[in-house]
Amino acid sequence: MAVYTEVNDDELAAFVGGYDIGEVVSFKGIAEGVENSNYLLATTKARFILTLYEKRVKRDDLPFFLGLLEHLSSRGLTCPQPVPDRGGRTLGELCGRPAALVTFLDGVSVRRPTPEHCGELGAALARLHEAGKGFALRRPNALGVAGWRPLAESARGRSAALGADLDAEIAAELDHLEAAFATLDLPQGVIHADLFPNNVFFLGGRLSGLIDFYFACDDAFTYDVAICLNAWCFEPDGAFNVTKGRALLTSYDAERPLSPAEIAALPTLARGAAIRFLLTRLVDWLDTPPGALVKKLDPLEYLRRLRFHQRAADASAFGWPT
Amino acid sequence: MAVYTEVNDDELAAFVGGYDIGEVVSFKGIAEGVENSNYLLATTKARFILTLYEKRVKRDDLPFFLGLLEHLSSRGLTCPQPVPDRGGRTLGELCGRPAALVTFLDGVSVRRPTPEHCGELGAALARLHEAGKGFALRRPNALGVAGWRPLAESARGRSAALGADLDAEIAAELDHLEAAFATLDLPQGVIHADLFPNNVFFLGGRLSGLIDFYFACDDAFTYDVAICLNAWCFEPDGAFNVTKGRALLTSYDAERPLSPAEIAALPTLARGAAIRFLLTRLVDWLDTPPGALVKKLDPLEYLRRLRFHQRAADASAFGWPT
Repeated sequence: MAVYTEVNDDELAAFVGGYDIGEVVSFKGIAEGVENSNYLLATTKARFILTLYEKRVKRDDLPFFLGLLEHLSSRGLTCPQPVPDRGGRTLGELCGRPAALVTFLDGVSVRRPTPEHCGELGAALARLHEAGKGFALRRPNALGVAGWRPLAESARGRSAALGADLDAEIAAELDHLEAAFATLDLPQGVIHADLFPNNVFFLGGRLSGLIDFYFACDDAFTYDVAICLNAWCFEPDGAFNVTKGRALLTSYDAERPLSPAEIAALPTLARGAAIRFLLTRLVDWLDTPPGALVKKLDPLEYLRRLRFHQRAADASAFGWPT
Repeated sequence: MAVYTEVNDDELAAFVGGYDIGEVVSFKGIAEGVENSNYLLATTKARFILTLYEKRVKRDDLPFFLGLLEHLSSRGLTCPQPVPDRGGRTLGELCGRPAALVTFLDGVSVRRPTPEHCGELGAALARLHEAGKGFALRRPNALGVAGWRPLAESARGRSAALGADLDAEIAAELDHLEAAFATLDLPQGVIHADLFPNNVFFLGGRLSGLIDFYFACDDAFTYDVAICLNAWCFEPDGAFNVTKGRALLTSYDAERPLSPAEIAALPTLARGAAIRFLLTRLVDWLDTPPGALVKKLDPLEYLRRLRFHQRAADASAFGWPT
């Protein structure tokens, strides 16, 4: 939530001169995105987001991310569209960092999604999965099932700082999930993998755009659905809202029909998604020095969500109509 | 350089509903202003800056600041213009904090001002001083000559952390300045008091607006000029650029002629401005915990500027034509 690299007016003018986007009219660092420096750039022609990629984003991944946004935009999905420079390149360099310019999306993210928002989200997620088909590049999910055990190892013995001893509970869950995921054979493709409410814009109750594709990767489409069930359908008191879950699932299904195998896998996938965010939040919590610029998120929120999913007998627990 | 208070979509919609400014189209926290939380708000009608005043700004001062911006705007100065709500009030409340909406100004601040920029600045500063005449409210300069000794006391004995022992040098300078300022009798009025390059916008080389009036107060007009000489006319290597100083002073003088007394006072005022920023930077430096969100500025930069001013025999040292 900060600007890590400051771009001055001379550096900006030189960079913008490489694009056919008019003259700079205003330029503001914005508090959006945890990993990168983002600026809102207005020119005489349009508004853009300028992103400088900081060290947590791998340079080798940038062609995947930028290519994906181009692919999805060209198929009608409303997401940031990379702007090519005069030489046709979408990836440039500014202040010694990889940098890219994308179109600005109108809309405001919602803090507390309603069932209507969840319905809009489900449909957009399905359209994203359909639009991603045919994209040529591949990116394995580094935070998929194979990545969870190493995260758990790096946190082991340290969770007492949170007032909880999670090691045994996490280890048992990973034993279960690694076995359960090995039996899954679900349709895969490009997923967003981080489609939390802050990455979805709405205008007048209608979804107006999806942003922040920097966790996008190849994985099961339904795993993306399970991430959204975790991120959109729990109430502040910890209860799962089945009305929201039903809206999300049925609107997804209307755009991209879920197979019986995908529906049956939802409890397992929801557990997987919960442990993924539990583990990354736990490691971030333990590794972030006090006073750092990054806002720390509560790992235990996802422990409670995990326990809900463990009790889910089937997809009806999430609102799937039976 | 951060957003301290997060405003969610429901709180924003309720707040914006109190104004006749259209519907929210986008809303971004911006990394501007050290003291407050600032958001760039776009509606179906226009763009605005929404400011939530955090604890370092005194609530009692807000009518002065907002009233001043209204006064200056109505006299044609390009500065943020407070937007009244449906009840005619420019000061509201949001997330438990005083909040105000002002018009958005196009333009980009310059990191390294040219003599042309300094000329634009001088003329705008004089127009600001003229436009401020007739403003009914008063605000003493808390960081004027009477405020320097208490700042020095709060830093005393601690400057060794900077690799310098400043106590004796500061005490001697304050002895000199308190006596010298007591002899001054200069035209006073509303001054900006913090018109650094980051608070001045340019478009195509022309000054397009002045922002951040949260140090504005009543003091000698020429003290404001002296602050700008300090903030705009030194090179990165520490040298004073007389070409820039001359551009600033002569363009100011063309809009608001400087009296012989004001010209004669410039070396004293420049020393005062240098010690003011030396002291506030010193206290901030010593009092800011490591890892805090605030960027620390080098106090010793102003010690070097102070020493330059101490050697200035008269205004010609700053480029005033003799």
